[in-house]
Amino acid sequence: MDVQFKITKEFIEEIQEFVATGNRESIVQSIADLHEADVAEILDVISMDEAKFIFRLLDDEMASDVLVELDEDVRLEFLEALSAKEIAEQMDNMDSDDAADIMAEMSEEKQEAVIQQIEDPQQAIDIASLMQYEEDTAGAIMGTELICVNENWTTDQCIEEMRIQAEDVQYIYTVYVVDNDKRLTGMLSLKSLLFAKKGTLVKDIYIENVRYVNSDESTEEVASMMKKYDFVALPVLNPDNILIGRITIDDVVDIIQEEAEKDYQMASGISENVESSDSVLALTRARLPWLIVGLVGGVLGAEVIGLFEKQLGDFPQMAMFIPLIAAMAGNVGVQSSAIVVQGIASNNIDLSGIAGKLFKEFRVALLNGIVCSLLILGFVFAVKKDLTLGLTVSISLMAVIIFAGIFGTLIPLLLHKRKIDPALATGPFITTTNDVIGLFLYLYIGYLFYF
Amino acid sequence: MDVQFKITKEFIEEIQEFVATGNRESIVQSIADLHEADVAEILDVISMDEAKFIFRLLDDEMASDVLVELDEDVRLEFLEALSAKEIAEQMDNMDSDDAADIMAEMSEEKQEAVIQQIEDPQQAIDIASLMQYEEDTAGAIMGTELICVNENWTTDQCIEEMRIQAEDVQYIYTVYVVDNDKRLTGMLSLKSLLFAKKGTLVKDIYIENVRYVNSDESTEEVASMMKKYDFVALPVLNPDNILIGRITIDDVVDIIQEEAEKDYQMASGISENVESSDSVLALTRARLPWLIVGLVGGVLGAEVIGLFEKQLGDFPQMAMFIPLIAAMAGNVGVQSSAIVVQGIASNNIDLSGIAGKLFKEFRVALLNGIVCSLLILGFVFAVKKDLTLGLTVSISLMAVIIFAGIFGTLIPLLLHKRKIDPALATGPFITTTNDVIGLFLYLYIGYLFYF
Repeated sequence: MDVQFKITKEFIEEIQEFVATGNRESIVQSIADLHEADVAEILDVISMDEAKFIFRLLDDEMASDVLVELDEDVRLEFLEALSAKEIAEQMDNMDSDDAADIMAEMSEEKQEAVIQQIEDPQQAIDIASLMQYEEDTAGAIMGTELICVNENWTTDQCIEEMRIQAEDVQYIYTVYVVDNDKRLTGMLSLKSLLFAKKGTLVKDIYIENVRYVNSDESTEEVASMMKKYDFVALPVLNPDNILIGRITIDDVVDIIQEEAEKDYQMASGISENVESSDSVLALTRARLPWLIVGLVGGVLGAEVIGLFEKQLGDFPQMAMFIPLIAAMAGNVGVQSSAIVVQGIASNNIDLSGIAGKLFKEFRVALLNGIVCSLLILGFVFAVKKDLTLGLTVSISLMAVIIFAGIFGTLIPLLLHKRKIDPALATGPFITTTNDVIGLFLYLYIGYLFYF
Repeated sequence: MDVQFKITKEFIEEIQEFVATGNRESIVQSIADLHEADVAEILDVISMDEAKFIFRLLDDEMASDVLVELDEDVRLEFLEALSAKEIAEQMDNMDSDDAADIMAEMSEEKQEAVIQQIEDPQQAIDIASLMQYEEDTAGAIMGTELICVNENWTTDQCIEEMRIQAEDVQYIYTVYVVDNDKRLTGMLSLKSLLFAKKGTLVKDIYIENVRYVNSDESTEEVASMMKKYDFVALPVLNPDNILIGRITIDDVVDIIQEEAEKDYQMASGISENVESSDSVLALTRARLPWLIVGLVGGVLGAEVIGLFEKQLGDFPQMAMFIPLIAAMAGNVGVQSSAIVVQGIASNNIDLSGIAGKLFKEFRVALLNGIVCSLLILGFVFAVKKDLTLGLTVSISLMAVIIFAGIFGTLIPLLLHKRKIDPALATGPFITTTNDVIGLFLYLYIGYLFYF
C-alpha cells in the first residue's frame, strides 16, 4: 500500500518533461493512482498549455473531479476552452452543488447553453434551482444529493430504497427521515439501521431532535453551528419545512478558513482575496487602495505637523519622537481591533455591553500605557537629559495609547452593530486615524509644555 | 420539532435568576433539551459559583460532555474543585482523546491520582498512552475509539462484531479493515456493508488504497491533508503499520481555525492566544511585549532623526512628511508579509524559488510605488508649491515602498526556510524595522537634495 504519495517539484518537472516530448503513456501512468486534488494541484502550477494537454488525457470521472478541485482562475481558462457540450458532460458527473458553483463562474449565455446540454433532466433542474439562491446563504452551498427515508417504512424497505438513492451520493453521512408530506421529522444513524432487527419500523428507531437550517441562513451561521455542534452534515429546509438539501462539513471547512483568512487580509490592508501565485496586476490592485488610504492619512499628518511648524522650528528635538508616537498609536489600535474582530467572529455570547468592553480596554491600555510611558520617560531623561521632553513624550504616549485602544475597540463594535463587517475597520483605517490623532495629541501636549 | 433554539442574554439571565433563588427544578427543566455545547457556553459566561451550582445538577453523561466543551480557563477551575475520583468518573464517559487532552491540563500529581481511579482499565490505558505523544502531533489528537474488522470476515460477522465495538463509538465514520497481524489494509464503507449480499467476504468489497498518517506527523500536516482530500476521518498507524487510532474532522476544524487566527493575532502584535473575555492582566501580558518592541523601534527612529537634526532645523518642512514615510513603510511591509505567510500556511506547491518571489514583489512594489509617488508629488507641488520637497518625498517614498515590500517578503521566507514560524516576523517586527529604515532613506535622500 503506497498511498503516502506527496507531490514534489521533481515529480512535476518529470511530468512537464513528458508533456514536452508528447509522451502520453508515461503521463497516464504517472497520474493513474493520484487523487483528483493532487492532479488539480499539478495543473494549477504548470502552464495552461501543459495543463490542457494533461486534462485531455483524463477519463470522464477524473476530469470532472479535477475540474471541481482546480483553482478558480485556472478553471476559468479551462471553461473557456471547452464547448458547452463538453462542460455539460462534466456536470453530469458532478455533485449538484459543485456544478452550480462552477456554473456561477460562467457568463449567462454559456450557462443557458450548458444547462440545455445536460443529459440527466433531474441534474439540470437541481443545478438550475441551486443557482437561484443568493450567494453566501445555506441554499447556495447545499447539495441536493441526500438519502431520505419515510418514517413509516421498515428498515428493510429503507435499505432497498437507499440502494437506489445511494448511487448519486458519494458519502452517506446521515439518513434523513421525512413524513408523508416530505417534512423532515428526524434522522436515522447508519449504526442503528445496521443493527436493527428485521421488520423494525423507522419511526421506532430514529432520532427526533435534529438541527437544521433554512435555505436563506447565512453561511457564516451555518459554519458556526456545524463547528459548535461537531456536525458532519446539516439538513436544509425550505420555508414549508420540506427537506431540500444538505450541507457537508468539507464545504464548511473551506468557509471557516476563508473567514479567518479574510479577517487577517483586511487587517493587513489587502482588499481582495489574493494569493501569492496571483498575477502582479491582481496583487497590485488588492494592495493599492489601502496604500492610498495610508497616503491620505500621511498628508493629514503632514497638515497636523504644519500647524505646529513654528514650535517645531523652536524646539526641533520634538520632531525626534514623531514616528514613535505615530507607530505606537497604530500598534495599539491594531491590537485592540484584532481582539474585537476575533471576538465577533467566534460568535461567543457576551454579557458585557459596549460600555463594559470599553472600560475593560481602558484598563488594559492604562496598564500598557503606564509601563511604556515610564520606560520612555526613563530613556529620555537618562540619555537625553531633558526632563521637559521626557514628560512631554511620556504623557502624550499615555494619552495616545489610551485613545488608540478605545478607538480601536469602539469602531469595530459600532460597525458590527450596524451590520457592517468590522474587519473593514482594522488595518489601515484604524492605523491611519490613530496616527493622525496621536500626532495631534503629542504636538498639542508639547505646545502646552513649552509655552 | 423546536430545535432551532439559540442562547440569548435573556435566557441566561433567567437561569441566573433561578440560581439566585435556588430553583433547581426550573434550571433542570430549562437546560434539559440543550446540547452540551450550549450548556458549556452558558457556564463559560456566568460566574464560577453559578456555574458550579448548575454543573452539580447535570446527569453523568451530560456533565462529562459539558466538561469537554468548556473554555479551558473555566474548566481549570472546575477541575480544581472536583476530587480525583469525581474527575475519573467523568473520564470514564469521555472519548479517550478528549480525556487525554483534559488530563494534560492538570498537575502531574493529580493526573496520577485520576488515572488510578478510572474504572474501565482499557480506558485508563488508552488515556495514559495518548498522553505519551508529543503536543501538536497526530498521536496527541487522535482518538482510540474506532471500528475495525478483519479482512477475512464475512459481512455478517462484521456486523456482529461492530455491534460490540460500536458501543464506545459515537459516530462511525469509517470501518477500518486490518489483516491478521492488525496491520491496516484498507477500509469498508458503511454503504457497501449495508448493501452487501449475505456471506460476502470483507476482502472482496473493501477499498484498498487508504491514506493514513503516522502518529508523529504534525497536526498542521494532518489538517492540510484532511482539508485537501475532504476526509471526515483519517487513520493513524504506528511505525509497524498497526492501526492505533483515528482523527476526526471536528478536531481538525478547530486546528484549521486556530492556525488561521494565530497568524492574524501575531500580525496584530498579540503574542498569546487571548480572547476578549480573558482577564485584563492576561490581555495586557499578551500585548505589552510587542508594544515594547514598537517602543524600541521608536527610540531608534528618534536616533535616526537626531542624526539629521541640523538639516531639519534648516528645512523644517521636511519634518511634515516623517509620519507619512514611516506609515507607508509599515503598511507595505505588513501587506507583503501577510501574503507570504498565508501562502506558506496554505501549503501550496510553488515552482518559483525565493529569487522569483522577490522579483515578483519588486514588480508589485514598483507599480504601487509609481502610483503613490506621482500622487504625493502632485500634491506637494500643487498645494505646497515646493518642487524640491515634492521630489524628495516622492523619490524616497518610491525607495521606501520597494525596500519595505522586498524586506516584508524576504524575512518570512527566510524564517520558514529555517523552520521558524514566519508569522513571528509579521506585525510589529517588520513594521518597526521598516519604519526605521524608511526614515533613514527619507532623511538621507532629503540631505542629498538640499545640500
